[in-house]
Amino acid sequence: MSSQFNFQLKHTDQNSKARRGKISTAHGDIETPVFMPVGTQASVKSLSPHELVDAGSQIILGNTYHLYLRPGTELLRQAGGLHKFANWDKPMLTDSGGYQVFSLAGLRKIHEDGVRFQSHIDGSYHDFTPENVMEMQRLIGADILMAFDECPPHDADENYVARSNAVTVEWARRCKVAWLENEPEYGYSQALFGIVQGGTFEKLRRQSAEQLVELELPGYSIGGLSVGEPAPAMYAMTEVATEVLPIDKPRYLMGVGKPENLVEAVNLGVDMFDCVMPTRNGRKGQAFTWQGTLNLKNAQFKDDFHPIDEKCRCYACQHFTRAYIRHLLQANELFVMRLVSLHNIQFYHNLMAGMREAIEQNRFVAWRKEFYSRYRSGDKE
Amino acid sequence: MSSQFNFQLKHTDQNSKARRGKISTAHGDIETPVFMPVGTQASVKSLSPHELVDAGSQIILGNTYHLYLRPGTELLRQAGGLHKFANWDKPMLTDSGGYQVFSLAGLRKIHEDGVRFQSHIDGSYHDFTPENVMEMQRLIGADILMAFDECPPHDADENYVARSNAVTVEWARRCKVAWLENEPEYGYSQALFGIVQGGTFEKLRRQSAEQLVELELPGYSIGGLSVGEPAPAMYAMTEVATEVLPIDKPRYLMGVGKPENLVEAVNLGVDMFDCVMPTRNGRKGQAFTWQGTLNLKNAQFKDDFHPIDEKCRCYACQHFTRAYIRHLLQANELFVMRLVSLHNIQFYHNLMAGMREAIEQNRFVAWRKEFYSRYRSGDKE
Repeated sequence: MSSQFNFQLKHTDQNSKARRGKISTAHGDIETPVFMPVGTQASVKSLSPHELVDAGSQIILGNTYHLYLRPGTELLRQAGGLHKFANWDKPMLTDSGGYQVFSLAGLRKIHEDGVRFQSHIDGSYHDFTPENVMEMQRLIGADILMAFDECPPHDADENYVARSNAVTVEWARRCKVAWLENEPEYGYSQALFGIVQGGTFEKLRRQSAEQLVELELPGYSIGGLSVGEPAPAMYAMTEVATEVLPIDKPRYLMGVGKPENLVEAVNLGVDMFDCVMPTRNGRKGQAFTWQGTLNLKNAQFKDDFHPIDEKCRCYACQHFTRAYIRHLLQANELFVMRLVSLHNIQFYHNLMAGMREAIEQNRFVAWRKEFYSRYRSGDKE
Repeated sequence: MSSQFNFQLKHTDQNSKARRGKISTAHGDIETPVFMPVGTQASVKSLSPHELVDAGSQIILGNTYHLYLRPGTELLRQAGGLHKFANWDKPMLTDSGGYQVFSLAGLRKIHEDGVRFQSHIDGSYHDFTPENVMEMQRLIGADILMAFDECPPHDADENYVARSNAVTVEWARRCKVAWLENEPEYGYSQALFGIVQGGTFEKLRRQSAEQLVELELPGYSIGGLSVGEPAPAMYAMTEVATEVLPIDKPRYLMGVGKPENLVEAVNLGVDMFDCVMPTRNGRKGQAFTWQGTLNLKNAQFKDDFHPIDEKCRCYACQHFTRAYIRHLLQANELFVMRLVSLHNIQFYHNLMAGMREAIEQNRFVAWRKEFYSRYRSGDKE
């Protein structure tokens, strides 16, 4: 078990910016590009860690904001960290809490040290600062940590975003200091990523990326996207960031997204993704397939005795029919949330595996074309 | 795969009425006494069929009333029966719908042919008759079927129960005729059980049992208990029934119950049980153990890093702590419903396995005493 974080850029596709790499952590290696299932509150909703591994999960994500509120970092410290608490012995990443503080929490106020906010659970007041967010993530014990950032609203104007950029970069500086000063809690190293912000303003995106790169962090995230802006703006901002970010560091596009978003971002040189879509939409009966999405509640599946996807090797497709799944959805049976979530996680991992293979063989451009020839993007999620 | 239903009474404990037997069906054998998890709507809530088999489930139960309303028997026929629809290839039992019609459905009226009622889902009107209930169960395809019965309310008076008894016996007669006349849908035989009713009136219980025994059915159920009467009345009525029922036929106490109820009923010569308690209570965080029940939501488990039961071999106890489970309960995480349900199902199966072994060795009396020396019955469920 290597105790040092490392990113190896194995290969770049000859005809696109798509990259094939490997991240090494104390809990194992991660082949990139990679999709990371979201385990918000120490659980990827409805699924067991063993099912995730079987589906091909290499790394999962935990949310610092949620874990801080419940069960609390002191309990996680007593448990020996989130890996042990949740029985997940592969790599793990925690976000910074910034997105949740600025989207989920009540009444928030930025002050000199950080931000004061109210818990969405009980309205209690809390302060997040760069220093205490680093301490929380140290105690949670993830292999990859995020610097605390301000996530400006989707409709913020240029002046607001410019001021916000300055806050995020200053907080990243303070995070780096705290990260370097403190010993890891559990004996293995934890890698800090900075988060590029800048809204949909090209100049501010570039500036944010440039200022963060100066901090020479182990990796960089692209945040504040997929928050309501049109897809072309998301891609444009991703491209601005990836052009600035160093080629020898991993790039993580946070909270993205639909399968086509992942394909486009890989094409722009992104290495890592997370999104609740496969599990959240799965719980409602939306299945992802190579032909697009299926709403398995639809009456057309009432007597369809085929699996969700004939070629899929997931537990759901190996053992159950669309008719059975539709019945369980109609009857509000809990088991169906597992089945469709698991299928979707498997699909996302297969999607990434397909891209990884295509990049290795310098045929990502053809692969992407072939993907779109089959995949029909759904209008609704 | 034997196509004939058979019950073999292997051994009766030398110092009690506890019995050790084996039921053979087209889908395999069932070692008795046995507990049957409830798969109301073609799914044992939150659990996969493979998890059930791993936990020791030999047979599961489906509810005719629910399956008739959703997904409907025509769809189950198209699927090749409930076994194939739900991917369960071990034995299966269906109830008669009587209990649900008389407890769950709206506005019900007994008429000459059967009973008219309103669906609890959409208020639509339906008729259940002995003949069409047999047809439904023929199409569902369970290995063991129940005769359609009237389930009188817990507080019904003696006159009402006497009239109801006559209805139940007459319906059982008609069920037998229909069962004998119709070929099984899927090529394997299905065994019909009659249901002893009679409320808590000893004379009426005995009469019901005697009249059903005259029908010479493959097995007998004891119904209308565990519906609100005190435990001593349930045991007294069970004993009245088991004294009358033939020793060479299996006896099934329907809808029972708590672990101590199972121990007492086995002591009275009962072979089969079903109950939603392990799964329903499990979803709320109540775990069954050899020491009694635990409410895993309680603050005392906040930092308890032991499994639910150190000696339990279930998936939950092998991989997760009480502290983690309590956190998931606090956070309303779906995964926890699986963990505690699975543990409870495993506990119920271990309980029955313990009784089976004790009976074989003629030490059931000592086993029962030992059970009570450890087990503290909870006051609440």
